[in-house]
Amino acid sequence: MSFTPLGQGIPLIDQIADALCARAPYQVMTYDSPASSPMPSLEALGEVMSRLRAALFPGYFGNARIAASSLRYHLSASLDSLYRQLAEQIRRGICFTRAETSSACADCCDLAQEKALDFLAQLPAIRDLLAGDVKAAYEGDPAAKTPGETIFCYPSLVAMTNHRIAHALHALDVPLIPRIISEMAHSATGIDIHPGASIGPEFFIDHGTGVVIGETSVIGARCRVYQGVTLGALSFVADGSGVLVKGMPRHPILEDEVIVYAGATILGRVTIGGNSIIGGNVWLTRDVPRNSRIVQQQSVDSIVPSGKAAGDIMTGFGAGV
Amino acid sequence: MSFTPLGQGIPLIDQIADALCARAPYQVMTYDSPASSPMPSLEALGEVMSRLRAALFPGYFGNARIAASSLRYHLSASLDSLYRQLAEQIRRGICFTRAETSSACADCCDLAQEKALDFLAQLPAIRDLLAGDVKAAYEGDPAAKTPGETIFCYPSLVAMTNHRIAHALHALDVPLIPRIISEMAHSATGIDIHPGASIGPEFFIDHGTGVVIGETSVIGARCRVYQGVTLGALSFVADGSGVLVKGMPRHPILEDEVIVYAGATILGRVTIGGNSIIGGNVWLTRDVPRNSRIVQQQSVDSIVPSGKAAGDIMTGFGAGV
Amino acid sequence: MSFTPLGQGIPLIDQIADALCARAPYQVMTYDSPASSPMPSLEALGEVMSRLRAALFPGYFGNARIAASSLRYHLSASLDSLYRQLAEQIRRGICFTRAETSSACADCCDLAQEKALDFLAQLPAIRDLLAGDVKAAYEGDPAAKTPGETIFCYPSLVAMTNHRIAHALHALDVPLIPRIISEMAHSATGIDIHPGASIGPEFFIDHGTGVVIGETSVIGARCRVYQGVTLGALSFVADGSGVLVKGMPRHPILEDEVIVYAGATILGRVTIGGNSIIGGNVWLTRDVPRNSRIVQQQSVDSIVPSGKAAGDIMTGFGAGV
Amino acid sequence: MSFTPLGQGIPLIDQIADALCARAPYQVMTYDSPASSPMPSLEALGEVMSRLRAALFPGYFGNARIAASSLRYHLSASLDSLYRQLAEQIRRGICFTRAETSSACADCCDLAQEKALDFLAQLPAIRDLLAGDVKAAYEGDPAAKTPGETIFCYPSLVAMTNHRIAHALHALDVPLIPRIISEMAHSATGIDIHPGASIGPEFFIDHGTGVVIGETSVIGARCRVYQGVTLGALSFVADGSGVLVKGMPRHPILEDEVIVYAGATILGRVTIGGNSIIGGNVWLTRDVPRNSRIVQQQSVDSIVPSGKAAGDIMTGFGAGV
Amino acid sequence: MSFTPLGQGIPLIDQIADALCARAPYQVMTYDSPASSPMPSLEALGEVMSRLRAALFPGYFGNARIAASSLRYHLSASLDSLYRQLAEQIRRGICFTRAETSSACADCCDLAQEKALDFLAQLPAIRDLLAGDVKAAYEGDPAAKTPGETIFCYPSLVAMTNHRIAHALHALDVPLIPRIISEMAHSATGIDIHPGASIGPEFFIDHGTGVVIGETSVIGARCRVYQGVTLGALSFVADGSGVLVKGMPRHPILEDEVIVYAGATILGRVTIGGNSIIGGNVWLTRDVPRNSRIVQQQSVDSIVPSGKAAGDIMTGFGAGV
Amino acid sequence: MSFTPLGQGIPLIDQIADALCARAPYQVMTYDSPASSPMPSLEALGEVMSRLRAALFPGYFGNARIAASSLRYHLSASLDSLYRQLAEQIRRGICFTRAETSSACADCCDLAQEKALDFLAQLPAIRDLLAGDVKAAYEGDPAAKTPGETIFCYPSLVAMTNHRIAHALHALDVPLIPRIISEMAHSATGIDIHPGASIGPEFFIDHGTGVVIGETSVIGARCRVYQGVTLGALSFVADGSGVLVKGMPRHPILEDEVIVYAGATILGRVTIGGNSIIGGNVWLTRDVPRNSRIVQQQSVDSIVPSGKAAGDIMTGFGAGV
Repeated sequence: MSFTPLGQGIPLIDQIADALCARAPYQVMTYDSPASSPMPSLEALGEVMSRLRAALFPGYFGNARIAASSLRYHLSASLDSLYRQLAEQIRRGICFTRAETSSACADCCDLAQEKALDFLAQLPAIRDLLAGDVKAAYEGDPAAKTPGETIFCYPSLVAMTNHRIAHALHALDVPLIPRIISEMAHSATGIDIHPGASIGPEFFIDHGTGVVIGETSVIGARCRVYQGVTLGALSFVADGSGVLVKGMPRHPILEDEVIVYAGATILGRVTIGGNSIIGGNVWLTRDVPRNSRIVQQQSVDSIVPSGKAAGDIMTGFGAGV
Repeated sequence: MSFTPLGQGIPLIDQIADALCARAPYQVMTYDSPASSPMPSLEALGEVMSRLRAALFPGYFGNARIAASSLRYHLSASLDSLYRQLAEQIRRGICFTRAETSSACADCCDLAQEKALDFLAQLPAIRDLLAGDVKAAYEGDPAAKTPGETIFCYPSLVAMTNHRIAHALHALDVPLIPRIISEMAHSATGIDIHPGASIGPEFFIDHGTGVVIGETSVIGARCRVYQGVTLGALSFVADGSGVLVKGMPRHPILEDEVIVYAGATILGRVTIGGNSIIGGNVWLTRDVPRNSRIVQQQSVDSIVPSGKAAGDIMTGFGAGV
Repeated sequence: MSFTPLGQGIPLIDQIADALCARAPYQVMTYDSPASSPMPSLEALGEVMSRLRAALFPGYFGNARIAASSLRYHLSASLDSLYRQLAEQIRRGICFTRAETSSACADCCDLAQEKALDFLAQLPAIRDLLAGDVKAAYEGDPAAKTPGETIFCYPSLVAMTNHRIAHALHALDVPLIPRIISEMAHSATGIDIHPGASIGPEFFIDHGTGVVIGETSVIGARCRVYQGVTLGALSFVADGSGVLVKGMPRHPILEDEVIVYAGATILGRVTIGGNSIIGGNVWLTRDVPRNSRIVQQQSVDSIVPSGKAAGDIMTGFGAGV
Repeated sequence: MSFTPLGQGIPLIDQIADALCARAPYQVMTYDSPASSPMPSLEALGEVMSRLRAALFPGYFGNARIAASSLRYHLSASLDSLYRQLAEQIRRGICFTRAETSSACADCCDLAQEKALDFLAQLPAIRDLLAGDVKAAYEGDPAAKTPGETIFCYPSLVAMTNHRIAHALHALDVPLIPRIISEMAHSATGIDIHPGASIGPEFFIDHGTGVVIGETSVIGARCRVYQGVTLGALSFVADGSGVLVKGMPRHPILEDEVIVYAGATILGRVTIGGNSIIGGNVWLTRDVPRNSRIVQQQSVDSIVPSGKAAGDIMTGFGAGV
Repeated sequence: MSFTPLGQGIPLIDQIADALCARAPYQVMTYDSPASSPMPSLEALGEVMSRLRAALFPGYFGNARIAASSLRYHLSASLDSLYRQLAEQIRRGICFTRAETSSACADCCDLAQEKALDFLAQLPAIRDLLAGDVKAAYEGDPAAKTPGETIFCYPSLVAMTNHRIAHALHALDVPLIPRIISEMAHSATGIDIHPGASIGPEFFIDHGTGVVIGETSVIGARCRVYQGVTLGALSFVADGSGVLVKGMPRHPILEDEVIVYAGATILGRVTIGGNSIIGGNVWLTRDVPRNSRIVQQQSVDSIVPSGKAAGDIMTGFGAGV
Repeated sequence: MSFTPLGQGIPLIDQIADALCARAPYQVMTYDSPASSPMPSLEALGEVMSRLRAALFPGYFGNARIAASSLRYHLSASLDSLYRQLAEQIRRGICFTRAETSSACADCCDLAQEKALDFLAQLPAIRDLLAGDVKAAYEGDPAAKTPGETIFCYPSLVAMTNHRIAHALHALDVPLIPRIISEMAHSATGIDIHPGASIGPEFFIDHGTGVVIGETSVIGARCRVYQGVTLGALSFVADGSGVLVKGMPRHPILEDEVIVYAGATILGRVTIGGNSIIGGNVWLTRDVPRNSRIVQQQSVDSIVPSGKAAGDIMTGFGAGV
């Protein structure tokens, strides 16, 4: 196969390149980074996450051939590399945010180091939380054969591993990086948890596709949610000039041992009392006392007698696309 | 670990291979391409998309180390490579479609070149549209800290970048390739926009998982939709012999500044008047005038007093799976 | 860019490593595999799936340059490699499950070989089923231009290829591997079908994001479902000590030619009679006779006259997050 | 680390690019290939050689896990791929040569296919020759522990495998490709055998670095040479206008069972009679009868009493560099 | 570009495959390995060598970013991985040798582990030897600017690192692997040192191409050799039936502080006395007392007055090829 | 295959690691680089060389699909990347040299940029020199079919491309990098040219294995050398304390149009007059007037009548190893 040469197309390429370099929208769309501070590297953060997963679940992820007896060697070496890699990505995140807000960058390097160490020191605690999430997944799904299967296969554990890590970094005021880590899990699982969300121990999300948990959500211990659940905002607050006020508490609080079934939507800063159950597809915008069971009002579905008449050109009714 | 040799298994492998080569369903399942026209390469299209992303958002994607001062060099070189790579994939797409419909293929190469150039000439306009989408994302999400964060992290920008590109190729009657590009974004974000959908400037999709926007949808300026929104068909039209008529307008029209909240479903060729708001989970199959606010009828949820009695074997009620 | 050396940070790394090696939760989170039996390799299973896809859809996937005339050579060689690769992964799956349940492992290798061969012998039948799924996709979607396009681009075919394979392995009592294969499709498409689900010929899932089909679901011939459909359990059965009973039939049965539109939820061991249509967003927990059409009760949406008053700080109402 | 932006350097880059595109030497140094015929791919030829090595020495090279019982499957598939890959590279070689000589290229594709098949048909004979070379290596080197060790480790087998293949292609008048294959071995082993050289069965080169065997050399059965041996030309013949006449027989003939020790140089179209031995470092430019032993005239080396006097500034005498 | 399908070529491929599977030479050329013991992996051994180089010369090779303060972590982890990787390759080497000699293989695994550990315990001693070789390179070459430059760039250090490692493995009776390691250096540097050769401290080879040092050579302390030097055998000893006796001492002994200049050839079990210098191109087959300087007898080269007569068709005389 | 766990081996690994971290030889063998200045990257320099080769010989190397019409785009972009990549490697080289000599490093970055630009400005001149080397290769080798073949296949062009580049960098006082570039060619071709050697236009090295050209060699126009030629030093000059004086002129001068045949050795600061021919294996340590032909004194080889008597245990005489 052979294309004829561009010939008079070449001026065209010059024209396109010129147009793309023209300033107006170019400026918005371009990150003209300081030479030493490119955007964080998704590839490097992918490696950071792989190392973290291997450190948190040895034998399940990472070098499968490392015997328990020599795990300690590899853990130390990996933590040391992690420290360096994560600090570099945090530094880039800080520089990026400062570039966008025109702040000076003299201490970015030291700051990044400090935050990376602070984060690593929390790894044992994060591991404990994830152990609880494994337990919750195994006990919460009748299809789970062993706890190990949930570690290795379940989207809930992918999402929660990323969230527990992203949340710890978010709490350290690390910019951008937590969001990237959350989006990695969102893309892989369809579960979208904002790094700011506070989630208690032994949390389990079954199936998970379409779950959205907003920035200021607070979830207690031993809760469980299913696919398509939204913990969202009911409204946004704008200031006098119409600009959205950022960071206001605007998402639900679930107390301990709340279960939310598939497709339910809970909106606004409402509190779902402990030990409550929210049924599937429920739409909820108000507080619920402890020990409640909320079910969707039984919709009286019409049953239409089917009759595919010869001349009937309507073949469906619903949400075919 | 060592497997004993297959021994008498070998005849089995021959039998399986024979069965798989037997004609009947084999013919349907096989693309016996002309030697010079294999299926489009997903890997090559992935590189095309990476180059496009780098050309549209320099500094954010692509070679992070390219200073603004030398951007022009790299842009020209990349556009030239893009032209060649994209033309080749378009050619494969055309040949594939013609092979399926037994059309001749003499001019596929010239045609592909022409379409690739026509597309590249639209890049500056596509860039302008995406600049509007960035603005919409930043302004529409209280959790967004900077516009750059939305470029780098938000599924909405992934989906819209792919859609703006796929839509331009679709408008040039390029077969197959636009659909592949849409599916790439669908797989990464859970947002499924048909390349045929017409979407105005400053569009934002928050969270996005489960969004479906059908082939003949028309969306005005400054609209916003949330996760789980469907803009679908209510029915399909079949011809006299029962075969679906393809390409008929069958999806909704959203006029300017319409907001559709999470989980809402709008079906059929209905028109949602400008400046309207469709509440979460609303199910809508009729026209709506300008400036409307449609909310789901408040479902009177039953509150059932919870009581986990010792002998109770029902542990949940909802959509556990 | 240069980080100052860790200095006194080093003791910190030692402390973190010590804490991570401390036993308590460590034991749960660690797979201390027998040296010869690490966890199954996701990379190897990815290659197994690529080979299977190439064997089932020659010309569409795999080496695009293989002419039909020499297909037979490559098929035999690939089947032979597949046998070996799949047997090894099955073996690891068996060893993992036995390690978790402390069973002996002497015959894992022979068992794995036997199951791999049994599976390969079903490939022609799987191919026939997939040919039907291609037909269903082409006929069921007015946007599909050719059957080949559905093979190459449609998430439904990705999900059904993985499911037909995972289901066959599940029926052979292969542990863990079927689940991994299902999750691969779940992550790529947002369609979550449990390997145990029994699905008849000519099945089509349009768009698919958010579809969940539970372990004991039974689906007849020529059914079709849309995005966001759940075939789930209404409740779980626990034994006397509160432990979930695993494997009980608890998901719906769809008879032949049932269509379920987007967002519908069908829960429990109910039977949807043949040739029925379940409308979008319907919530269904009871049996439905043959030839029924179930539609959501038309919700009487309130239309609220919009009026963005100057001082109005509420900018949305719905499920913004 | 951060470089200051190029600033005024950019004009410099433009100037360099302009100078590099200026025609004069540019034309000599540029291969302005027809679009469909780039230079042969070294990477593709590397893969061709790997496949050939795996086909000729199964179990030693290529997929180590292929059991003998299924070798036949993989051999057929690999030969089919080889046919295609090699034909493509041969085609490129033909096109390149014709481009340099301005010949037409209409039949390059057919010609390349024909030559690739002709070559593959010789593989069994090439294998037989290499079996003899393995035997010669094992019997000729007291340090060789097993024949297999010579296949796996010995530069002689690398060089002879490439040579036997390159020679067969050269005999089929394939341009360029044989030379590339020879240079691959030359770079890896330091053994430089021109593809035109005719070498009989059971040939062994020990150590090999620096061996040069010229284009028109003829070597009989069961010969052996050591490192640094040259079989070269004594003079070149020029035509009336001073241009070298190409292809004239100008290198030595070794009859059967000749041994040439390290560093010996044999120049010109001389004949070394069968069963002769040429000693190390011998310089030979004349015929030698059968059964001769040629040794270097014993040089009467001076022995100089050593005495490193304090003021002596000469620390060596020889070929320090 | 498109090849016409093979058509009737297919039988040809079958014929070639049949011929290649025919037994006679097939058996010699095939390693029909036990399933669990393929040939050693050159790729894995390459990684072993990279790890060893990084452990021996930290900062020069391996992860350049590892600060001295955390070197200890990475060293332990790398040694642990090395142990496992090297043991596996040694095991394969033992199995291969036993397969060739039909010995049983029950203890290969334990034996390999033991030898790998024995080898690792010698690493500090090997490091000390290499420190001496670095010193010798820096002091012996007037072109060397710093010792570090010789570590990073000099072929002598490549060759000696591989040799010191291969020699230690050879001394532990590890089969095959030492030879492979030697050939790696031979291919990269043109320096061919048999793993059996015994070389004292502070050895330096300048330039090195073409150097051959035979299996039973013994080299004292502080020796130096230049490119093209051969320490070879003068004759081989055969047993009554004409089979070469393997392992007999047959190569030279160099005592301490001997220098051998470029191209010199020393053959047979001769002893070169300490502090001697062997001049370039010398051919030596007898003992030399201590403190000798051996120079090539000054050859009385003829000077032929040049005269390129018009009709002269001889353009060179020498070793053009 | 499974190794028993290390058990008591672990203390051994700790001991080895401790020994390897012990200071004495450790200090010599370790490059404790400043964090921002690791050793130059061989991989990055490999890419630099690939870009340079593609810029110097477009169509032969680099992206084969770039049409001449768009070459200018790619050249500019590649030069810009080259500038950055090369500057970074030069900076590392400078830092390394200064670290070894304890000099300060404040201006390394600026200096490296300046040298990289100075080098790039010489590319057109380097291209002209290489055009002459191509001409010389084509005209000097009767086996060369086209000039393009020598560009693509000949070791001489590999060696000269690297040398012309390394020599230019050496002339700019760039440390370390030129040497690395030379060694890359040395390893690939067996031709060892010191970056300091000054070589005139139209130089050709045939075969090349074993050629050594020393640091202070000076070679005129249109010279030609064959494999195994050494242009070396006869002696080194030491200062009063016995340390070698570095950089003294100590290698030969070849005037224009000198030919040196295979294996010849020319040592010391001697001058070979223009238009002279040095015969193969000649050993030369004195000046030679213009127009000379130097041939090796015809050695009177003994011809020993061969007679392989039954009991003869000597099977060879020469340089078998």
